[in-house]
Amino acid sequence: MERADQNLAFMLQYENIAWFSDGEVRILDRRCYPAKTEFVRCKHHREVAQAITDMVTQSAGPYTAAPMGMALAAWECRNMPKEAQMDYLQDAANVISNARPTTAKRMAVLCNSCLQVAQNALKQDRNVADAIVAHTVDANNRRYRQIEEIAKHLTAKFPQNGTVMTHCFAETIVGMMLKQCQLQNKEIRLFCPETRPYFQGARLTATVCRDMGFDVTVISDNMAAFVMEREKVDVFTTAADAICCDGHVVNKVGTFQNAISAKYLGVPYYVTGAPDAGHPTVDTIHLEFRDPEFTLQAMGVRTAAEGVKGYYPAFDITPPHLVTGVVTDRGIYLPTQLNDYFLDNPQAKNAVVV
Amino acid sequence: MERADQNLAFMLQYENIAWFSDGEVRILDRRCYPAKTEFVRCKHHREVAQAITDMVTQSAGPYTAAPMGMALAAWECRNMPKEAQMDYLQDAANVISNARPTTAKRMAVLCNSCLQVAQNALKQDRNVADAIVAHTVDANNRRYRQIEEIAKHLTAKFPQNGTVMTHCFAETIVGMMLKQCQLQNKEIRLFCPETRPYFQGARLTATVCRDMGFDVTVISDNMAAFVMEREKVDVFTTAADAICCDGHVVNKVGTFQNAISAKYLGVPYYVTGAPDAGHPTVDTIHLEFRDPEFTLQAMGVRTAAEGVKGYYPAFDITPPHLVTGVVTDRGIYLPTQLNDYFLDNPQAKNAVVV
Repeated sequence: MERADQNLAFMLQYENIAWFSDGEVRILDRRCYPAKTEFVRCKHHREVAQAITDMVTQSAGPYTAAPMGMALAAWECRNMPKEAQMDYLQDAANVISNARPTTAKRMAVLCNSCLQVAQNALKQDRNVADAIVAHTVDANNRRYRQIEEIAKHLTAKFPQNGTVMTHCFAETIVGMMLKQCQLQNKEIRLFCPETRPYFQGARLTATVCRDMGFDVTVISDNMAAFVMEREKVDVFTTAADAICCDGHVVNKVGTFQNAISAKYLGVPYYVTGAPDAGHPTVDTIHLEFRDPEFTLQAMGVRTAAEGVKGYYPAFDITPPHLVTGVVTDRGIYLPTQLNDYFLDNPQAKNAVVV
Repeated sequence: MERADQNLAFMLQYENIAWFSDGEVRILDRRCYPAKTEFVRCKHHREVAQAITDMVTQSAGPYTAAPMGMALAAWECRNMPKEAQMDYLQDAANVISNARPTTAKRMAVLCNSCLQVAQNALKQDRNVADAIVAHTVDANNRRYRQIEEIAKHLTAKFPQNGTVMTHCFAETIVGMMLKQCQLQNKEIRLFCPETRPYFQGARLTATVCRDMGFDVTVISDNMAAFVMEREKVDVFTTAADAICCDGHVVNKVGTFQNAISAKYLGVPYYVTGAPDAGHPTVDTIHLEFRDPEFTLQAMGVRTAAEGVKGYYPAFDITPPHLVTGVVTDRGIYLPTQLNDYFLDNPQAKNAVVV
């Protein structure tokens, strides 16, 4: 298996995040990482979808877990007639794509490409599950190379000795960005808002930064504006769960208010990824609300008294005028000119770059 | 003992928050309330100061704990010669006032008034500790009446069916505001950001709202802007740990970014209290930083990996142009015209209204 990057600590770990083999998909349980390194073992593709729904993996994790779930589905139906296999896989694609509503379009892009792979494999009498796994490895490597390009463009916006603020867990781009900082000899320190209620910033992003040898500080989510001002943050950057072609950015709740603070304080906000052809405008976004009770606890300990209500929007929407630029593999675009990304790159409409 | 308000659930509870009797000060431990109702028992005034430093009580809590600590100090030195007693109390006032740097000026106002009471009591051969306790009851009742006036002015800014967002724990004003809503038949629902890292919003403010029968929802701190927009928040309101006469507001970290979001979204931000004569300008503010490790845990459970740094500014500073109005007992003032508050009210320079 080709590896886009042998040395990147995070990428090595990434390969273990979700993998199909021997009739099961193993998914790193990010809900308890790094306190515990445990894996959820899914014996059925519906369990993979459920694991995604249940936040066993998130950020870009589902974009590997989903095709691995498709490989598992192919394994489940391997003894059916070929046509029934395709029906079975079509059904699996629907189930897995809709595991979380806000990212359903991206998930559908990936699951549909697995269907294509399955059809070809069946025609050629090849093992469908193996074909999907091989396809996913290729797709991930392609994605890694794209994200490496994104990281180059993003890091070019950092000063030589800079301070960068993240939000939530931006998965691959975090490791790639830090590697670019090393290659370009940029001395970056990072501030990671902890990202309630799941603490992805405290648990995941900060751990990657530490593993790669960077100066990293976790702050609570209410300190973002204070830190931007007091610690002179040079760049605020996040990935996105959807980038609408009209420039609206859908990302972990808190991105919106951090972008407002960044604008107020004159800190540029760069979103990494690529526009989603499936979301021509923000009107196509289905914002996901999760179990409100989850906001009433922290790390498993109840915070509020009984009778107090919770509230849990997983994402929020940042309007284009708060976004300085969308950093893609093909350069930085103004949020108001994202359709240009597809102009000489129409096949990008069927890709997911996270 | 006269009580400003017999019926207000919160006030009744408030009276137990810090009290001197029989050679000790009992302080409700808000660090674990409402999960547990426990009291820290201080046998020496230095333990009272330490309890304030350690956040056993906060918000307006220290403004009762401090004079009670002075009563305890008076009890400690009761058998000394009168002059030595005053020296002892002067030293105690210094220790207690400086328990937390950002609120030291307010604490000094209160402790100095206890010194005055002590001097008079000594002259008249009265029990000094009892005199300080009686003085504190009077001062609190006076304060409650002032806060009732503040609550009237604030509540007048709420629509008939409104949505109000708080931040952190605004102590007495929360109960008073809700009581005014009941008196004025205003149907208010409340959103309380949880207020990391101590969860005062989730644990304290939300509990008071629930106890008083209001619809109350706890959100994580990264949801404030989303909720302001989506749930159509009518008013964002906080108390303050200091209101500089130049209109800068010092309050729990997160107030600043919520005020930025409120401004961006057109939500008015009202601060309750009164200008601090001890802070003519923001330059006199000493911002308190606390143990950075505390930000790396939640409800006692570690969030970040070893090697990740923490960061913990207790407060932040909101500039006057983000403040719609300062709601005082004498009406609402523009943040740029706070010196008017003292014009026909010069004795207010020696009061603490929280």
